[in-house]
Amino acid sequence: MRVAHVAPLAEAVPPKLYGGTERVIWWLTEALVDLGHDVTLFASADSITSARLVPCAPSGLRLAGIGDHTAYMLAMLNKVLQSADRFDIIHFHTDLFQFPIFRHLAHKCVTTLHGRQDLPDFRPIFDAFPEMPLVSISDAQRAPVAHANFVATVHHGLPENLIPFAPGGGDYLAFMGRISPEKRPDRAIEIAKRAGMPLRIAAKVDRVDQRYFEEQIRPLLDHPLIDFIGEISDAEKPAFLGGARALLFPIDWPEPFGLVMIEAMSAGTPVIAWPGGSVPEVIRDGESGTIVTSIDEAVTAVHRASGLSRTGVRRCFEAEFTAARMARDYVALYRRLIAHSRPAPPFDMVVPA
Amino acid sequence: MRVAHVAPLAEAVPPKLYGGTERVIWWLTEALVDLGHDVTLFASADSITSARLVPCAPSGLRLAGIGDHTAYMLAMLNKVLQSADRFDIIHFHTDLFQFPIFRHLAHKCVTTLHGRQDLPDFRPIFDAFPEMPLVSISDAQRAPVAHANFVATVHHGLPENLIPFAPGGGDYLAFMGRISPEKRPDRAIEIAKRAGMPLRIAAKVDRVDQRYFEEQIRPLLDHPLIDFIGEISDAEKPAFLGGARALLFPIDWPEPFGLVMIEAMSAGTPVIAWPGGSVPEVIRDGESGTIVTSIDEAVTAVHRASGLSRTGVRRCFEAEFTAARMARDYVALYRRLIAHSRPAPPFDMVVPA
Repeated sequence: MRVAHVAPLAEAVPPKLYGGTERVIWWLTEALVDLGHDVTLFASADSITSARLVPCAPSGLRLAGIGDHTAYMLAMLNKVLQSADRFDIIHFHTDLFQFPIFRHLAHKCVTTLHGRQDLPDFRPIFDAFPEMPLVSISDAQRAPVAHANFVATVHHGLPENLIPFAPGGGDYLAFMGRISPEKRPDRAIEIAKRAGMPLRIAAKVDRVDQRYFEEQIRPLLDHPLIDFIGEISDAEKPAFLGGARALLFPIDWPEPFGLVMIEAMSAGTPVIAWPGGSVPEVIRDGESGTIVTSIDEAVTAVHRASGLSRTGVRRCFEAEFTAARMARDYVALYRRLIAHSRPAPPFDMVVPA
Repeated sequence: MRVAHVAPLAEAVPPKLYGGTERVIWWLTEALVDLGHDVTLFASADSITSARLVPCAPSGLRLAGIGDHTAYMLAMLNKVLQSADRFDIIHFHTDLFQFPIFRHLAHKCVTTLHGRQDLPDFRPIFDAFPEMPLVSISDAQRAPVAHANFVATVHHGLPENLIPFAPGGGDYLAFMGRISPEKRPDRAIEIAKRAGMPLRIAAKVDRVDQRYFEEQIRPLLDHPLIDFIGEISDAEKPAFLGGARALLFPIDWPEPFGLVMIEAMSAGTPVIAWPGGSVPEVIRDGESGTIVTSIDEAVTAVHRASGLSRTGVRRCFEAEFTAARMARDYVALYRRLIAHSRPAPPFDMVVPA
């Protein structure tokens, strides 16, 4: 199948540093190439891919200091449009920008929504472009815009050997990701202190969260059990996650997916999580982790974590959250879209009131 | 002529508070209606217009707390596209968003660029959509993107009686607008102190400029000659500008237009300005004001300001900067575009490398 993937230009594919969306696009496009498909990737020129790369910016825009990405995005979409005939499916990861430009090709387009949908900002788009097929990354992500034209939920997946199974585990708790109020690092710290188990926090602090970190979190770090190690690289993740007794994911927001949960599961490390957003879809309670709703329950779950089979956790990962599974799901969706495809009717001319 | 105007949705037309672009759109569309044209305005539903209003958001998005305007913008442009056949000209004030959507109608579209063009963020758009006709609001605004498809410069204009001629003037200097580093309120304060003439500062402080204000400007305000009166309403502007000896406009950036200069001129108040961006196109040196390049020159200009005829300043305004003149310029441009219009050729299919 001839498939185009259209990446946001904020980061390269794969990203040099952060960038969950670009990382998923990388894993997905590599897995599609592995399955034998003819994949074209529209992305920044410093991307590295087994697909055919169409460069659409000299480098990832964020690190290049470009604040407003609209111009690059629109120029890229124009490039995609000009070669649209070459593709059976055009798969967008660019939020909304493509909707008005590709309406007439809706039958062969699909857009994965990578972010939260519970803000009012995006509402009008789904009514304005009802024919554009959408993919959610969890069923929970759809809730605020349930009427939109979702054609599938496809959970993210990781390359099977990216974070190898670590059968032994270890004796500390892990917290990984961003320090921000909705990720509730304060809960993680309280759980560790109450459970009497060391906590290692591998997390970055975005500028927008600097004040929260200084005022709410830094005062909690001065404790012998708490080790704030800052941001870690991709290369450090396997040891960090594989050496943990459990990952704490005590979130307090509608998490669209939560990659770190499946990264931990890949290492065989169970996840102790609050049931926001995608969590109940990702964690099998009692198998790959424990879903809790209070600090008390979380402390109990920490004490029982070594009772969960790490092999069983890894088996949940392999069954549901590999990049190969993600790619097969998308291919099945592409085939379904192609089977039902017909060119869109011409626009109705609407007379303003 | 049947003309559509497409406004950004950040503010209503006219804006409830700030909003230079929406204010200009208001003056322009009212003046086009006065000239007998059939004008349709795509804007937020709380807009007030003599044109036919097509509401595209319940109210201005900024005051409604919507941070990302993309979805509303794209839904509006889709509405415009659906009724495109009803218009001889579609005039956009929405930066870039319309370019890929209206390429095939480029022959009857025109976009006024309201902002600065010296940032790298917008560059790729002009190469990607070279057929889209552009209007600059000063010749100087074009400099960083001189190769783009500019078809005219149209200076802004005000309704003739919005800020009435005040023949007497007064005994203070005026500074009006935003407190920000590029507007150089520090220069204005130094000029006033050196000239020994009172300065009244009618300016808002945006959140992004709060620190600059506290650290750089507030310490300069504690002086008997300096009166910081904060933000003023539209209703207060005539008295504020009309009662001034001169307006200080000591900018240090490529000002795209600078509405406050023509607001002062409308009152007959001369402008003492640094020659950044549009300034040499707006001020006739020695007639409607004085262009200076140092504090010394500015102090001299203050002492000589009463030597400039306020009637002469007002005459410059009436000759060049009324809304009626702006509307006539745009109508002439519309006619020129229509005369040369032909449908765009179909896109070339470009094969990615």
